[in-house]
Amino acid sequence: MKIAILGFGTVVKGVYEIVKKANVQTQNLSVSHIFIRKNKKRILPEMTDDIDEILEDKQTDVVVEALGGIEPAHEFILKALKQGKHVITANKAVIALYLKEFTDAARENNVKFYFEASVGGGIPWIQGLEKALRIDSVNSISGIFNGTSNFILDQMSKNGESFEEVLQKAQELGYAEADPSADIDGIDVANKLCISADIAYNINIQDRKNLPVFGIRNITAKDVDFFDKNGYSVKLIGRTHQKGNQFDYVVEPTLFVKHTLEANTPDNYNLISLNGDTIGKLDFFGQGAGMFPTANAVVQDLLDIKEEKDHLKRNFESKMEYNPELTSADYLVRSAANIASLFKDYAPTQKDNYIVVHNIPVGKMHEIMDLILKVDESAFMVSLPSNSKLAHKKISKQEAVA
Amino acid sequence: MKIAILGFGTVVKGVYEIVKKANVQTQNLSVSHIFIRKNKKRILPEMTDDIDEILEDKQTDVVVEALGGIEPAHEFILKALKQGKHVITANKAVIALYLKEFTDAARENNVKFYFEASVGGGIPWIQGLEKALRIDSVNSISGIFNGTSNFILDQMSKNGESFEEVLQKAQELGYAEADPSADIDGIDVANKLCISADIAYNINIQDRKNLPVFGIRNITAKDVDFFDKNGYSVKLIGRTHQKGNQFDYVVEPTLFVKHTLEANTPDNYNLISLNGDTIGKLDFFGQGAGMFPTANAVVQDLLDIKEEKDHLKRNFESKMEYNPELTSADYLVRSAANIASLFKDYAPTQKDNYIVVHNIPVGKMHEIMDLILKVDESAFMVSLPSNSKLAHKKISKQEAVA
Repeated sequence: MKIAILGFGTVVKGVYEIVKKANVQTQNLSVSHIFIRKNKKRILPEMTDDIDEILEDKQTDVVVEALGGIEPAHEFILKALKQGKHVITANKAVIALYLKEFTDAARENNVKFYFEASVGGGIPWIQGLEKALRIDSVNSISGIFNGTSNFILDQMSKNGESFEEVLQKAQELGYAEADPSADIDGIDVANKLCISADIAYNINIQDRKNLPVFGIRNITAKDVDFFDKNGYSVKLIGRTHQKGNQFDYVVEPTLFVKHTLEANTPDNYNLISLNGDTIGKLDFFGQGAGMFPTANAVVQDLLDIKEEKDHLKRNFESKMEYNPELTSADYLVRSAANIASLFKDYAPTQKDNYIVVHNIPVGKMHEIMDLILKVDESAFMVSLPSNSKLAHKKISKQEAVA
Repeated sequence: MKIAILGFGTVVKGVYEIVKKANVQTQNLSVSHIFIRKNKKRILPEMTDDIDEILEDKQTDVVVEALGGIEPAHEFILKALKQGKHVITANKAVIALYLKEFTDAARENNVKFYFEASVGGGIPWIQGLEKALRIDSVNSISGIFNGTSNFILDQMSKNGESFEEVLQKAQELGYAEADPSADIDGIDVANKLCISADIAYNINIQDRKNLPVFGIRNITAKDVDFFDKNGYSVKLIGRTHQKGNQFDYVVEPTLFVKHTLEANTPDNYNLISLNGDTIGKLDFFGQGAGMFPTANAVVQDLLDIKEEKDHLKRNFESKMEYNPELTSADYLVRSAANIASLFKDYAPTQKDNYIVVHNIPVGKMHEIMDLILKVDESAFMVSLPSNSKLAHKKISKQEAVA
């Protein structure tokens, strides 16, 4: 099977290595072309900067898109599918936007569009979810989808360091990029959550901008210490629920009591969970990023294409309404501004430096937080587990601030 | 697709329910026969006590064996395969003994032999392992494979109750059987570990009786309390390692520091991990037993057969030697007998009621423990994590007993 790879980053190097491994070698996968941008040096004979040379080559069976970003990735993927080539990509940003378009084009041209590596890296999450869906309705998904932010929170918790110190360390280790925004502001998690929800509910999320996202940029060493002293670990979580023909989704820092799997997911690992009506709670834990785990997922897709293994067929045409008030939660909010009155409908109480907000719809909470950030750009919020002792201990008169 | 089911226990009832679900209904799976033993009442028209009626029925495509035990399950599975019928079973005891025989018979008769439900219940462990093996060498597997023993240890830890109290509670809840031996003496884990090792190393473990197994029957509330006070949770673990053409395996109680996933696997959940050379550490967590999760795994196998999805092909013919000294560990041993001299080659020290044994080959440890049990049938042992503080703090003269 002849493979063209678009891009020549870390993951591609991993694919090159894995294709040479004993178990995989027998499958006769070979790389026929590598597309590089015009200004890059052609260090291998199979390199080209002419995309049409690849797309028009009748010998090429599969295109692995590893350019990242939206364009020209979107354009190239679509062209490749229309030329009758299978496409594999790990590019969550472009899939989150165009999953339905790509899937339709693949079906129309009788080829496969596979993207296991896009969510959870080496964790077999996409296929695990698809497999559960053959039998079950999956009515919730929740997870630590981003290794970089988990590394930062884990280090802050272990060493009492500040967010800035740990971010710098993560950048030095190559875990975080020079512009860390996608990781720390929850954008990467949002993309992965949208892809997961599209599959779980067979929908086509087009207005991703509605998705409430709050990242970890504003967390302080004092926050982490306070959570720890009260028996909690903080994690950046993406989660979604479905009920009837409504769903919600959110990306936000979330507290977990110490004996949960989430609280004990260390370093840059990922942990992704689904809840199905017969399978119950199923969790997948592993390396969500890194050269070899991600390349492993790409090669798994290549082998599925080679062995003509069909993944679950989805048309992403179910009608389901996003309801920002579908679920409610308790929150801790920290701000130097006087914010208690904003939460007067949600029984606000004071706890240390935090306002505790009770039973507020998730969408509403994020709406109010957007207002708070306009007057205090260092404000922080975190959601609490249901029945948290922190939120529900008896409220004394002194503590009530409303 | 016409299905004959042998047996009519809980899992079969679950399969019946799941086959009626919306997602699965479209697949046209229907149960044509149910085999029941001669003394059972025929409450459904498809019930029969004549196995030949089923095996000779040309319309039946798949036989789901759910009788349990070794015979006649072994005989019926083999006959069904030879009659050109696909076979699915959750019966780990019979698979652990006859995996190669069944696989050979399936290949010769051009049918499938699938057994996802046999290890980890609803957790997609067998296929997760097979998938990893398409690319990687898997050089270790470790896990909490048995929900009943995990429930017992978790309850003892949470409530400080005795082993006997919790076992009785588990029996009342239907988590443990009247004869709990398979669960608490590690036999169930041993079967699941053998199946996993057979697949991982492509071998045919025939002398399963060599496998060192020590269960949790002798654990006391005082043991659990001592472990807890020293920062550990105790879990019944099955694990195997491979190095070159040697492997080892063991079933034994094992301590885990509090912030590991193992220590935080609650109730009757399972957690199974593999280590692959490119995928790294991959963990699967979920319901390892129960009507619906197990039935879900059976129906997943039915759907794979329906959709002609091939699982990984294994011949179980690799030559690999079991080496009981391949790995070493530290152990705590509790006994009323005077046992320190038995461990004189392993730097024994005293810690509270326990002898701490250092860096002893796993096989050797179990050999000595068998001797100890002959003089003290209430003796208990537990393996320690590598670099455990409990084992490696400086040994004072008073503590050294050797």
